[in-house]
Amino acid sequence: MDSSQFREAAHIAIDEIIQYYDTVADRPVLPSVAPGYLRPLLPPSAPEEGEPWTAIQSDIDRVIMPGLTHWQSPKFMAFFPCNSSFPGMLGEMYSGAFNAAAFNWICSPAVTELETIVMDWLAKLLKLPECYESKGEGGGIIQGTASEVVLTAVVAARERLIRRRLADMPEGEDRIDKAAEMRGKMVALGSEHAHSSTQKAAIIAGTRYRSVPAPRSENFSVTAAALRRTIEECKAKGLEPFYFTATLGSTATCAVDDLAGIAALAADYPDIWIHVDAAYAGSALVCPEYQHLCPPLASFDSFNFNLHKWLLVNFDCSAFFIKRRKDLLDTYSIVPAYLRNNFTESGLVTDYRDWQIPLGRRFRSLKIWFVLRTYGAQGLREFIRRHVKLGEYFNSMLTSRPDIFTVVTPAAFGLTTFHINPRTPKVSSPANRPDPAHEAYTNDFTPSADAQFREAANQISKEVYEKVNAQGEFFLTSTVADGVYFIRVVSATLNAEEKYLKRVFEVLVQFAEKVRSEGSE
Amino acid sequence: MDSSQFREAAHIAIDEIIQYYDTVADRPVLPSVAPGYLRPLLPPSAPEEGEPWTAIQSDIDRVIMPGLTHWQSPKFMAFFPCNSSFPGMLGEMYSGAFNAAAFNWICSPAVTELETIVMDWLAKLLKLPECYESKGEGGGIIQGTASEVVLTAVVAARERLIRRRLADMPEGEDRIDKAAEMRGKMVALGSEHAHSSTQKAAIIAGTRYRSVPAPRSENFSVTAAALRRTIEECKAKGLEPFYFTATLGSTATCAVDDLAGIAALAADYPDIWIHVDAAYAGSALVCPEYQHLCPPLASFDSFNFNLHKWLLVNFDCSAFFIKRRKDLLDTYSIVPAYLRNNFTESGLVTDYRDWQIPLGRRFRSLKIWFVLRTYGAQGLREFIRRHVKLGEYFNSMLTSRPDIFTVVTPAAFGLTTFHINPRTPKVSSPANRPDPAHEAYTNDFTPSADAQFREAANQISKEVYEKVNAQGEFFLTSTVADGVYFIRVVSATLNAEEKYLKRVFEVLVQFAEKVRSEGSE
Repeated sequence: MDSSQFREAAHIAIDEIIQYYDTVADRPVLPSVAPGYLRPLLPPSAPEEGEPWTAIQSDIDRVIMPGLTHWQSPKFMAFFPCNSSFPGMLGEMYSGAFNAAAFNWICSPAVTELETIVMDWLAKLLKLPECYESKGEGGGIIQGTASEVVLTAVVAARERLIRRRLADMPEGEDRIDKAAEMRGKMVALGSEHAHSSTQKAAIIAGTRYRSVPAPRSENFSVTAAALRRTIEECKAKGLEPFYFTATLGSTATCAVDDLAGIAALAADYPDIWIHVDAAYAGSALVCPEYQHLCPPLASFDSFNFNLHKWLLVNFDCSAFFIKRRKDLLDTYSIVPAYLRNNFTESGLVTDYRDWQIPLGRRFRSLKIWFVLRTYGAQGLREFIRRHVKLGEYFNSMLTSRPDIFTVVTPAAFGLTTFHINPRTPKVSSPANRPDPAHEAYTNDFTPSADAQFREAANQISKEVYEKVNAQGEFFLTSTVADGVYFIRVVSATLNAEEKYLKRVFEVLVQFAEKVRSEGSE
Repeated sequence: MDSSQFREAAHIAIDEIIQYYDTVADRPVLPSVAPGYLRPLLPPSAPEEGEPWTAIQSDIDRVIMPGLTHWQSPKFMAFFPCNSSFPGMLGEMYSGAFNAAAFNWICSPAVTELETIVMDWLAKLLKLPECYESKGEGGGIIQGTASEVVLTAVVAARERLIRRRLADMPEGEDRIDKAAEMRGKMVALGSEHAHSSTQKAAIIAGTRYRSVPAPRSENFSVTAAALRRTIEECKAKGLEPFYFTATLGSTATCAVDDLAGIAALAADYPDIWIHVDAAYAGSALVCPEYQHLCPPLASFDSFNFNLHKWLLVNFDCSAFFIKRRKDLLDTYSIVPAYLRNNFTESGLVTDYRDWQIPLGRRFRSLKIWFVLRTYGAQGLREFIRRHVKLGEYFNSMLTSRPDIFTVVTPAAFGLTTFHINPRTPKVSSPANRPDPAHEAYTNDFTPSADAQFREAANQISKEVYEKVNAQGEFFLTSTVADGVYFIRVVSATLNAEEKYLKRVFEVLVQFAEKVRSEGSE
C-alpha cells in the first residue's frame, strides 16, 4: 500500500466512520449473531498473496459490522460507557503514525514530556491535592486500564512494606527468605463492592484478599469503622494488611466510600497503601460541585480514573496519580545494559517504564491533549453535567411509579439502580402505600423484614431485565448486592438524550406490567 | 468538533502523516532537545474554553515534532524496530471508531471472534505446532507487550503448580497458608540474556528469580545442560523452579536457546512451565527457512512474538499462544455479578478477559487482519528476507575490516553485534594477523586470555558508540555481555536499505579511526 493508496483508503475510512456515528442510534445496540458466527465467513488461513484494499474494506460491512455491540449508541446503558470523540480519534491517528515503543525518555522525549504535562493539567483540572503533581515527589502516568493500575499499586505496596520492615537487613538469602515469609501473610483489602480488579491483582501479586463489608444500610459504602474492623480482624489472625482500594463510584451503584473518615484512619496505619479507584466517577471531578471529594486524597498514596470511560478519550486511557513516584521506582526499576543511556543516568528525565508493568508505551498523551484543548474545561463540565441531569430525570420517572419500581440507589454520576416490585394484589392503591422494599431502602432495613418479598422481587426483576435485553432495543446490565437483584441504567453515554431515557422507561414499564400480570403470585 | 470538522481535520492529518513518512529518512533520527524542553512551550494548565482544531494541529509541528525520535527512519538501528504500516494504521482508525472496552463476548462478538481467527491464521503461518490453534485445548490472544505476556505466563505457572500440589487439600485457611508457603520457595528462571521482563515478572509475582548461564562459548544460548544444572541447584537449596523463559532471539544478540534440547528436558520437569519469548525474532517464522525451530514448541506451554516489532502491525500487538487455555482460566477467571451473562455461562464463547491481566480490550485484531491481507504471506516473507539479507551485507562489511572490527555475533535475524579493536601498533600489518579478540570469538575463548586487550576494546567501543549517537545521523544501541562491551546494528527497520547500512559502516570506520589515532595506548 503506497502513499496515494493509503490516502484514498483513509479518506474512505473517515467517511465510513462519520457515517457510522451519524447512524449509530438507529442500529440495534446488540448484535443478533450467534457464537461462532464469524468463522464460516472468513477463509481458514491468511492469503498467500496480498489483496487490494477495496476487498478488505468491504468486508468490514459484511462481516464485522453485524458482530459489533455499539458502545456509542445512546441505547447502550450497560456497564459504564466507553465514550469516544473525534479529537480522541485524531490522537490515535497521530500516535499510530509516530509509532514507537517509547519506554524511556530518549526513545521519544515528546512522548514522555507531553504525558507529564497533560497529567499535571488533569491534576489541576480535577483539583487533586498538589502532591499528585510532578513538581514535587509525585506525578501522573497514563496506563491502559484501571486493572493494570490497581495491580501496579498492589505490588508497589507489597514491596514498600517489605523494604520498610527489612530496612536493616543486609541483601542476601536471609532477607529473601524473610521477605517471602512476609508476603505469605500479607492481605490486600477492598470494598465488597470494589471492582474485581483488586481481587485479581491480589491473585497476581500472590497475596491474600479480604473484602470490607459495605452493606445497603451504608449505601454500599465502606466506612472508616468497617475498614478499621477488617484491618484489626486480619491483624488478630496474624495477617498483615498492606493495601486498600477505596472506591469513588463503585461498579454496582456508584457508591463513594467514606473518604474523609478513611483519610483520618490512614494516619493510624501508615504501612497500608490506600489507592482510590475512581475509574468511572473520577471524571466528574472536573466539576467544582464534586471537588469536595478531593482533599482527603492527600492522605492516600494513589488515585486513578479512566478518561476512556467518561471523559471522551478513546479506549484505552487510565490516568494514574501517585504521591511518591519513588514508591514505584523502588519496585519496578530494572536497568539492563541495553537500556542504559546518559539521559536516564543523569536523573533529569522520567523513564515511565519504571512506573508500570510493561516496558513499551504508546503516545497516549496526544489523545488527552487533543480532547482537553478541543472541549476546554468548560466543555467537559457541560458534558458531565448533562449526564448527571439525565440520570436525575430517569430517577424521577422511576419514583413517579412506586407501584412498579423501587429505586435501590438514586441517580449518582448518571447511574440509577432499581428493582421491580412484585405485584401486591392485597393493596388496593399501591401509590398511596410505599411498598415495603422501598421503605426499607430509604429507612432502616433489616434483612429479615421480608424475605419472601425479596425473593419475588429478585425473580421478577431478573425476568424483566432479561426481556428488555432480549428485545434488543436497549442494552442494560444487572447485578446483585446484599441479596438484592437490581437493574442498572447509565445515562452517561456519548449521545445520551432525554428521549432515549424516556423510551427505556416505557419499555421497562411495559415489560414489568406484562411480567407482573403473568406472574403466579 | 462536528462530523465535517472531523473530516477536514482527519484529511489534513492523513496528508501530514504521509508527508512525515515521505520525509522521515531526511530528518535527524534523534531529537536535539534537552530534558524539560516541552514545558516552557505549553501553557501551565488546560484551557478553560475549547480551541479550534487549526490551533491544536499546528502545535504538532511546533512542539511535538522537535521532540520525536523517529523509529520509522532507516537511520534508526537501535534496540529492535517498531515497524509501522499503512494497513496497520487503518486498523487503528477503525478500532478507535468502534471504541469499546470489549472484555467479554457480548461486549462485541466481532472483537473476540476476529481475534481467535487471526490468531489461528498466525499459528498456521508460523507453522506453530497444532496445539496452539483454538480448535483443540489451546489458542491465541493479543496482548499489549511481551512484558505483559511473560507476567501472565509466570503467574499462571505459579498457580498451576499450587493447584497440582494441593489438589487434595480442601479450600480453606490451611490451604491458603500452604500455598503461601509454596510461593515463598518458588523460583522463575530465564537465560542471563533473557529480556528483563522475566525478572520484572518474578518481582511482580513475588517469586524468586535465577538466571541460567548462557556464555559466549555457547553463543549466548541456554543449553539443556545449563538449564538442568540451574534447576538442580535450585532444588538442592530447597527451592522450587516453576517457570522458564526460553529465548528465541535474545535482546543483546538474537541468540536462540537450544529449543530441541530443552524440549527433551521438559519431559523430566513437567511442573516447570516453559514459555518461549520470541518477541522480535518470532516474526521470521513466517519464512519456511526458519520453521525448523517450531517443532520443539509442542513440548512447551506457551509462545509469544510481537507483531509490532517486525511484522508491520503498529504498536502495540503481542501475540501470545497457549497450549492449554484452561491454565489461564483457572488463574484469571473471576466472575462478579455485574459481568454474568448467558453467553459466558453457556461455555460456547471465549471471554478473553480471563486470559489476561486487564479487563477491557481494544479491537487489535483488525490491525493484524488488515496487515495479513494487504501483504499476504508472500509479502511478509519478502519483508523479512530483505532485512535478513541486509544484516548479512552489513556483517560482510565488518569482516572486510578485521583490523578495526571484531564481530561478536554474526548477523542473525538482521542484528549484527561487534566491537572495535584497539590499535595494535606493535604489529606492522594487522590485516595479516587476526587480532586476539577476533580469534577468541571464533575459537575457544578463555576469560583470562587478554584482560588488558578486553579493557581497551571495551573502552574504545564505548567511545566510538557514543560519538556515533552524539553526531545524530544514526541511532544505535550498545550492551555488555560476558564482560564484552559491544555495539548492535539492526537492519530490520521499515525503510532499511543497503545505502544506509553502507553509510553507517563508513561513519563507524571514521569514528573508530579517529578514536584509535587519538588513543593513548
